[in-house]
Amino acid sequence: MELWFTERQTPHQDFSLRVERTLHREKTPYQDLAVLETAQWGRMLVLDGYIQTTVEDEFVYHEMIAHVPLCTHPRPRAVAVIGGGDGGAIREVLKHPSVQRAVLVEIDGRVVEAARTYLPEISSGLADPRVEVRIEDGIAHLAQRRAEYDCILVDSTDPVGPAVGLFSAEFYASVYRALTEDGLFVAQTESPFFNRDLIQRVFASVSQIFPVARLYWATVPTYPGVFWTFTLGSKRHDPLAVVSEELDRRLTFPTRYYSAGIHRASFVLPPFVEELIQAGKAGAAPSRSNGGGAR
Amino acid sequence: MELWFTERQTPHQDFSLRVERTLHREKTPYQDLAVLETAQWGRMLVLDGYIQTTVEDEFVYHEMIAHVPLCTHPRPRAVAVIGGGDGGAIREVLKHPSVQRAVLVEIDGRVVEAARTYLPEISSGLADPRVEVRIEDGIAHLAQRRAEYDCILVDSTDPVGPAVGLFSAEFYASVYRALTEDGLFVAQTESPFFNRDLIQRVFASVSQIFPVARLYWATVPTYPGVFWTFTLGSKRHDPLAVVSEELDRRLTFPTRYYSAGIHRASFVLPPFVEELIQAGKAGAAPSRSNGGGAR
Repeated sequence: MELWFTERQTPHQDFSLRVERTLHREKTPYQDLAVLETAQWGRMLVLDGYIQTTVEDEFVYHEMIAHVPLCTHPRPRAVAVIGGGDGGAIREVLKHPSVQRAVLVEIDGRVVEAARTYLPEISSGLADPRVEVRIEDGIAHLAQRRAEYDCILVDSTDPVGPAVGLFSAEFYASVYRALTEDGLFVAQTESPFFNRDLIQRVFASVSQIFPVARLYWATVPTYPGVFWTFTLGSKRHDPLAVVSEELDRRLTFPTRYYSAGIHRASFVLPPFVEELIQAGKAGAAPSRSNGGGAR
Repeated sequence: MELWFTERQTPHQDFSLRVERTLHREKTPYQDLAVLETAQWGRMLVLDGYIQTTVEDEFVYHEMIAHVPLCTHPRPRAVAVIGGGDGGAIREVLKHPSVQRAVLVEIDGRVVEAARTYLPEISSGLADPRVEVRIEDGIAHLAQRRAEYDCILVDSTDPVGPAVGLFSAEFYASVYRALTEDGLFVAQTESPFFNRDLIQRVFASVSQIFPVARLYWATVPTYPGVFWTFTLGSKRHDPLAVVSEELDRRLTFPTRYYSAGIHRASFVLPPFVEELIQAGKAGAAPSRSNGGGAR
């Protein structure tokens, strides 16, 4: 018998992986959760039928969502990860010795438990004494915070279901208020091959709220569209202004995807992506005087 | 009824696209050829069940295989494309005004005919008076040439079947001899997620034969592994030594993926790829004194 998992990445495209074993399956209060052992990418976390992370390629996404913002901030002490219940982003955050407090805010406690049980390489950081795991709504959590975090990483699922609110202008304004005076945040924002409107809209929102807005990208082979973007908003520090020597100095730990060179290269956008976000900013410009209330 | 095309990208991973129409299907003397109309990526050329190119994402691959080498050479006049029967690489080559002669050497004339009929946006350049289409074996073609081409682009299928010889050290030595005294070549060399050994071996071979060997990459959403590499070998000109102003000056035409910034960024390798090719070079070093006969 052959067992295959199929993700319908778009209505017109499927991505399928041979499954050796179903390690875990449950309906949580929020979603359908599965941990599958795949032949190609090792153990894999799936939520509502969408691949969240695999043991073999997770280094790309988790290194890029964590080290780009944390190496941009001169001394990140308090960091929040919104979503990211698998613990991969937290694990990378903890590699920065300046970090004193890493808060994981995950709405679905069952994701954290499943990761602890079945994905120990990814979730290992959650046992660190600097980590605080809060099983609560990330939107509500940040709404109550003022100037608390140096970096906020929005490690969300796709913009459907529980994660929709994490892609709204109101949420980014709330992120702004929860950041310290020189804080910055990053959010995963999908692929320009499949999610043009989302990238355009999010970048325009972040540009209205934050003095520094940047888009960067990495190649994630198990995500739909694979050219994966991250949108960064910063109150002061510009990721493009950090000199290579500083980036090298900060990299006191080994990495597989991120490097000082990749930090810079990941902000170089192919023209088809650059045009997308510039058009979005131009389109959003007329409302600028009415937006950006948090600024 | 739903019709789906599935490519078995590895024994453990399938990639499937919804097909609106089968435009063409034949057994050529060399391979199984199909042109399918897909809902996601438009018309698509398939050889022996493997996706070669799609109308919607071909710009990534064709711009990157052509403009990186042609912008590195100060004045490319004669250019050969080995394989690439769809004409996409030739189309990009012709955008460089210095090019006087562009030779397409494709072993399977049926691929060229199918592209002419069904993929006019991709094959359009083949009608240009500077183009010479030769239906013959690329290996034999280059074996008979001495100092003839400024740039050679090896736009091959995967390293199985007719293309195996295009990934051998003997072939790269033949490429060296067919290049002018300051010529350079590039070959598509698959993904480090699935083809580590191939990339390592090819890079070691090219490093032994050419004074300048470089690896660069782009993200191709319809190719297996999607982090797609190109190996470049050059007798004199280093793609990393070309200044941005010169690259900008050469870009007299619009592009969607390639730019002066992407030219540089595409040579920045994540550590997991850099380590791969360095390990390959180290492993090949002992035989260096016996190799590189063409140098």
